[in-house]
Amino acid sequence: MRVVVPFSASEPKTRLASVLTADERRQFARAMLDDVLDALAALDVTPEVLATAPVDFDRDVPVSVDDRPLDAAVNDVLAETDGSVAVVMSDLALATPAALDRLLDADGDVVFAPGRGGGTNAFVARHPRFRVDYHGASIRDHRGIAAEIGAGVTEVDSYRLGTDVDEPADLTEVLLHGEGRSAEWLRDAGFELVVDDGRPTVRRS
Amino acid sequence: MRVVVPFSASEPKTRLASVLTADERRQFARAMLDDVLDALAALDVTPEVLATAPVDFDRDVPVSVDDRPLDAAVNDVLAETDGSVAVVMSDLALATPAALDRLLDADGDVVFAPGRGGGTNAFVARHPRFRVDYHGASIRDHRGIAAEIGAGVTEVDSYRLGTDVDEPADLTEVLLHGEGRSAEWLRDAGFELVVDDGRPTVRRS
Repeated sequence: MRVVVPFSASEPKTRLASVLTADERRQFARAMLDDVLDALAALDVTPEVLATAPVDFDRDVPVSVDDRPLDAAVNDVLAETDGSVAVVMSDLALATPAALDRLLDADGDVVFAPGRGGGTNAFVARHPRFRVDYHGASIRDHRGIAAEIGAGVTEVDSYRLGTDVDEPADLTEVLLHGEGRSAEWLRDAGFELVVDDGRPTVRRS
Repeated sequence: MRVVVPFSASEPKTRLASVLTADERRQFARAMLDDVLDALAALDVTPEVLATAPVDFDRDVPVSVDDRPLDAAVNDVLAETDGSVAVVMSDLALATPAALDRLLDADGDVVFAPGRGGGTNAFVARHPRFRVDYHGASIRDHRGIAAEIGAGVTEVDSYRLGTDVDEPADLTEVLLHGEGRSAEWLRDAGFELVVDDGRPTVRRS
């Protein structure tokens, strides 16, 4: 199975701008990408990075550069690939090999891992006509696209794959459940959990 | 296995006060409880409701009333039960039999289903000395309690069990993924998804 990880290399994670500088956001986004690639590398797949600008790795990772919007870039991948394709977002800082294995191993013409707030954090497409539309409540749109083309849908019920990291509140999840480079990056940058009476939040020392 | 569902019968879901009246919050909390009980009933278990005040059912559901805070009530259940106990929160509006089966079926002295924001939305305890502490980042505290008593920990990776419904933003999840009475209640009350350019939200018509 072809496994593609889209990555915004230039101006990532703008919704974290209240807590991280632009340079820090690039570093943190990169740590999350590396976590996703690490988790995929533990499975029997060779992930490819689909980046908006060149990305360097100190290991052997195929990178293709496509600076168009995400939908166009991913849909080209889907159109050009015979056989099955998995697309896994690069900000799934909690992804583990076990969670990704459940995704890749699930039966279905299309398999979705829904994300918090209506996103589609990862999917597998085994139907030649499936295409993406990531705007808005993409999981609802993707269910609709699958229905239109007569593709059977499976959804993988995973908290780890369902947690993409976009906003400051999501950093809490990384500190609570992360086991990789993203959590380490946050701790090194001085982030820690604060528990007052309500829900835990993060504070930077 | 004994399966207990704590339920706040008097003043539930105060963090939804900006979108629901007190009476509506009671109705919606009850719809969520019924969804959880429906999902459990599809498995080979007889759930008991542990409520802060009497609750009526039009079916045969054992109810015990304990008006003390949640920790005290749940810890009494744990202390008085020989053998394994599962505790499943009553606001898991997305719970399905499959998700709950993964929880109840997982090996481990204690099995946790972590919730968004550091919660412990459901657990199974097979160790006589495990006790709860739901305040703050309870999943972290529960991991610590398990470590102290030498109990082996398993965590169930479930988006459905990880989604408890506390705040208006959580209603989006119910409308996107709910299949039961809670989603129906929200739709009947006029709630619908609104997708602007950002993340989907809910609007009441």
